[in-house]
Amino acid sequence: MIMTRFWQNSENDEDPKSPSSGGGGTGMRIIVPLQGVVQGSGGLVLGSVIPCALFYCLQLYLRRNRSVSPPPSSSPSTSPSSPSSAPPSRSPSSGQLVEASELQRSPSNLFSRLSTGQGYISSRANLLTKSADAPYYAGPKKVTEDPYDALNNPDGVIQLGLGENRLSLDLVRDWLAEHVKDSIMGAEGGGDLSIHGIATYQTFDGLMELKVAVAGFMSQVMEGSVTFNPLQIVLTSGAAPALEILSFCLADAGNAFLVPSPYYPGFDRYIKSRTGVELIPVPCRSTDNFSFSITALDRAFNQAKKRGLKVRGVLISNPSNPVGNLMSWETLYSLLDFAREKNIHIISDEIFAGSTHGDQEFVSIARVLDSVGFDRSRIHIVYGLSKDLSLPGFRVGVIYSCNDSVLAAAKKLSRFSSISAPTQRLLVSMLSDTRFIQDYIETNRKRIRTMYLAFVEGLKQLGIECMQSSGGFYCWVNMSELIRSYSEKGELELWYKLLNIAKINVTPGSSCHCIEPGWFRCCFTTLTEKDIPVVMERIRKVSETCKKS
Amino acid sequence: MIMTRFWQNSENDEDPKSPSSGGGGTGMRIIVPLQGVVQGSGGLVLGSVIPCALFYCLQLYLRRNRSVSPPPSSSPSTSPSSPSSAPPSRSPSSGQLVEASELQRSPSNLFSRLSTGQGYISSRANLLTKSADAPYYAGPKKVTEDPYDALNNPDGVIQLGLGENRLSLDLVRDWLAEHVKDSIMGAEGGGDLSIHGIATYQTFDGLMELKVAVAGFMSQVMEGSVTFNPLQIVLTSGAAPALEILSFCLADAGNAFLVPSPYYPGFDRYIKSRTGVELIPVPCRSTDNFSFSITALDRAFNQAKKRGLKVRGVLISNPSNPVGNLMSWETLYSLLDFAREKNIHIISDEIFAGSTHGDQEFVSIARVLDSVGFDRSRIHIVYGLSKDLSLPGFRVGVIYSCNDSVLAAAKKLSRFSSISAPTQRLLVSMLSDTRFIQDYIETNRKRIRTMYLAFVEGLKQLGIECMQSSGGFYCWVNMSELIRSYSEKGELELWYKLLNIAKINVTPGSSCHCIEPGWFRCCFTTLTEKDIPVVMERIRKVSETCKKS
Repeated sequence: MIMTRFWQNSENDEDPKSPSSGGGGTGMRIIVPLQGVVQGSGGLVLGSVIPCALFYCLQLYLRRNRSVSPPPSSSPSTSPSSPSSAPPSRSPSSGQLVEASELQRSPSNLFSRLSTGQGYISSRANLLTKSADAPYYAGPKKVTEDPYDALNNPDGVIQLGLGENRLSLDLVRDWLAEHVKDSIMGAEGGGDLSIHGIATYQTFDGLMELKVAVAGFMSQVMEGSVTFNPLQIVLTSGAAPALEILSFCLADAGNAFLVPSPYYPGFDRYIKSRTGVELIPVPCRSTDNFSFSITALDRAFNQAKKRGLKVRGVLISNPSNPVGNLMSWETLYSLLDFAREKNIHIISDEIFAGSTHGDQEFVSIARVLDSVGFDRSRIHIVYGLSKDLSLPGFRVGVIYSCNDSVLAAAKKLSRFSSISAPTQRLLVSMLSDTRFIQDYIETNRKRIRTMYLAFVEGLKQLGIECMQSSGGFYCWVNMSELIRSYSEKGELELWYKLLNIAKINVTPGSSCHCIEPGWFRCCFTTLTEKDIPVVMERIRKVSETCKKS
Repeated sequence: MIMTRFWQNSENDEDPKSPSSGGGGTGMRIIVPLQGVVQGSGGLVLGSVIPCALFYCLQLYLRRNRSVSPPPSSSPSTSPSSPSSAPPSRSPSSGQLVEASELQRSPSNLFSRLSTGQGYISSRANLLTKSADAPYYAGPKKVTEDPYDALNNPDGVIQLGLGENRLSLDLVRDWLAEHVKDSIMGAEGGGDLSIHGIATYQTFDGLMELKVAVAGFMSQVMEGSVTFNPLQIVLTSGAAPALEILSFCLADAGNAFLVPSPYYPGFDRYIKSRTGVELIPVPCRSTDNFSFSITALDRAFNQAKKRGLKVRGVLISNPSNPVGNLMSWETLYSLLDFAREKNIHIISDEIFAGSTHGDQEFVSIARVLDSVGFDRSRIHIVYGLSKDLSLPGFRVGVIYSCNDSVLAAAKKLSRFSSISAPTQRLLVSMLSDTRFIQDYIETNRKRIRTMYLAFVEGLKQLGIECMQSSGGFYCWVNMSELIRSYSEKGELELWYKLLNIAKINVTPGSSCHCIEPGWFRCCFTTLTEKDIPVVMERIRKVSETCKKS
């Protein structure tokens, strides 16, 4: 029976590397490379030739990889600068100076002690350092080098590329100023009990008190429409490790997730870097308000299967990043149905759940699940306090899962991504102050809405339209009329102009795997109301140049 | 030339799976599986048979792995409890109750909506959850369930298995009580500047101010014998992620590190779980005070090479965990020479550098490096504030490297293991208070020494000897005379008795890959002086039973 399945797989195989096109014999069963063997009565000749050829190719491949010498950048004496994005660390030159001077001091060692070669750097580390030049990472670097400041650097680069909310920091600041000491050291100012509670080893997956508080907060931002069980929470140092840990648990290297696109550019790095899990974009179109359809998911699933990829799940963001739309009950219901049918997982990134600003109600996938009775063990929610509580600096991410195995493995992996205890104590206090939290959520929502409307209105006056958004910090802006050629190249040219002429860093749609050129993600919550005219004026200038040319 | 190298490799091959024993022909060159092909004039028959056989084995292996069904523990309705070690989370039963009740509420969905199968859990997640029963993890679980407390639970389990220093928490507490608010919110009690410094996104690899402070602290605990360049530091949320990130950067999956044993049991989980890097223990013996020799490293290196493993580095801990001895200048020098000769890296875990308590001086590998002029790019130090500053709850680890490529990749990976900004601000203040730090280091060292001597004396009166230790929180205790059979089984029987009869959790030597049975690692810095007679009395009882039997 297993053989039958293999045979069926191979019939559908579209992998150009598959030898099936050369097989096609009567009783012969040829299976994709590294998935099977040559068997059957007629396969004697091919049965020796094909494996030999395959082994030969493998040998060639291994030999080629082996002969690659370590990159010159790992040499401390020859590398001009590291490809790091953090400016102060680009050239650890003082360490090299020490080396040079020491060599002078001990000349007898100069020849005998110098290394015969640079140490090997892993291929995955090399890949990672080389990915820094993509627009999504190059833009923020430019901002760091020359940040806009209305008073001190009015010609600097304005940051619309970072998903950060600075509209309500005053509320957080006031609360912290009043409560920080008592929260961390205990109301008495620090007894033995409280020092043990912050200095010594704590559970790596988060204090139970914080899990309870976070579950309450999640429920509160979703207006009580769903309750969360603290026992099903694993806390991590940010949403990125939450996503990574989930990916480690749900898929093996070489497996894949389907991701409706445009999607958050961070997914690529957070998931692919270390887990080896592939992401397959499932393109959505502006004519559908960039909402996905089950038909498209189904098509992508089948295509992946034909390519020999095991699809282990669908990754969605709701509210959507970058578009900002919310998923309806019906959409989520059909997605659950799809996951059941294909026997795969759903990872729902709901990190903007409390930052909705339209009239449409947010529906968590947990809520649909609660009322329908699907298999809960395949649904996993990623959350965090970086967006809805404006605290990205606190590094708090949340895995919410009903799957015992996933929770058990994630708890062990949280060792690598745990939150410091003082921060946890601080947050237990803050989140337990439900009156403050309620005020904060309401005020913050109003402020986001005001800024969103002002930003959209500003663009409208320039003749630029945005997709209707109901949640999150972004406008998903259609600048396709400003690009010279209707292609990724045209889009990136405009992005470059916006960054270097208008001095505005935005995220180009291509970084989000959007298949329609000319869309840009603009974060408006890093701005003050006074900044909006400045931004619009800068866009206007570039816009006019584009229209003229 | 490459072929010649392969041929030489294959001659030395000791891998029993290698087909070379069947080859041995005149002109024929047979190389270890998956490293080569069958070539040469006489290989026509074998050239078809051997690859076929290999492919068949591979196919069998893949099929067997594929047919493994997901573990029953992933079923939310059937699993009795998850294999988690954190007691409050072992049974997320309320989530299951919700599911059951919802099913009752919507009976029409009962059959149509129930999943056709559990979602796939990755094989790496399954491996991870199954590793929880080893003594190193099972012991602490027992402590969590029934922790000793002199007043409230005098019959509870005493924790000697966790590397934590509680001797100087009073000093940390007093400092925090006075400075916590100003450190986090700024001296003025929280202006706009300070809220931006803690709430918004910060560099993931650590604030430069903290790197400067940490570099200073490292130098201070090493008594100024070496200076560290802050630009060569990447900060992580604990030493475990520091080790993991370094392993990701220095080796690819399937590569290996040599590790002189006995070694810290955590290495296995921290390094192997996600990176796929193998650890090869290089056994040291009591007759050498458990110090490694270059001869043994060289032998292990060659054996690994013969098995087809690429060795990428040597991982050491200095001061040694578990033994507590310090490495001499000469040992480190010869290790650097070995690394140069083999073109591999050295990872030196120096997390106990400031917790030395003997007369012997600690020598950091950075110091040897500074004065000899070896290639700096292959030396990497792991450090942290969990041990020397008694702050494991703060989750602060340090990667110190002079390798630009490693630093660049590590900075990107620190996204998954970053430290929350309030904690960083707190530590900048604390570490910059050099007078406090100097007092702390001196007092802490004295307290560790006092406890160490008291603990050793207590054991001596029971006729139990320890290895001479000069640093760290552990006694490396020889109880080989108390074990019934001189084997791992005998050792684990005694461990079980100590845990369940004496109610003392210690770490058996086998968890540290010690090849001599009967050694145990006992952490004495979690105790108060009053606890020592209690511990000794408990050991005495078990010891007498053992001697009688």
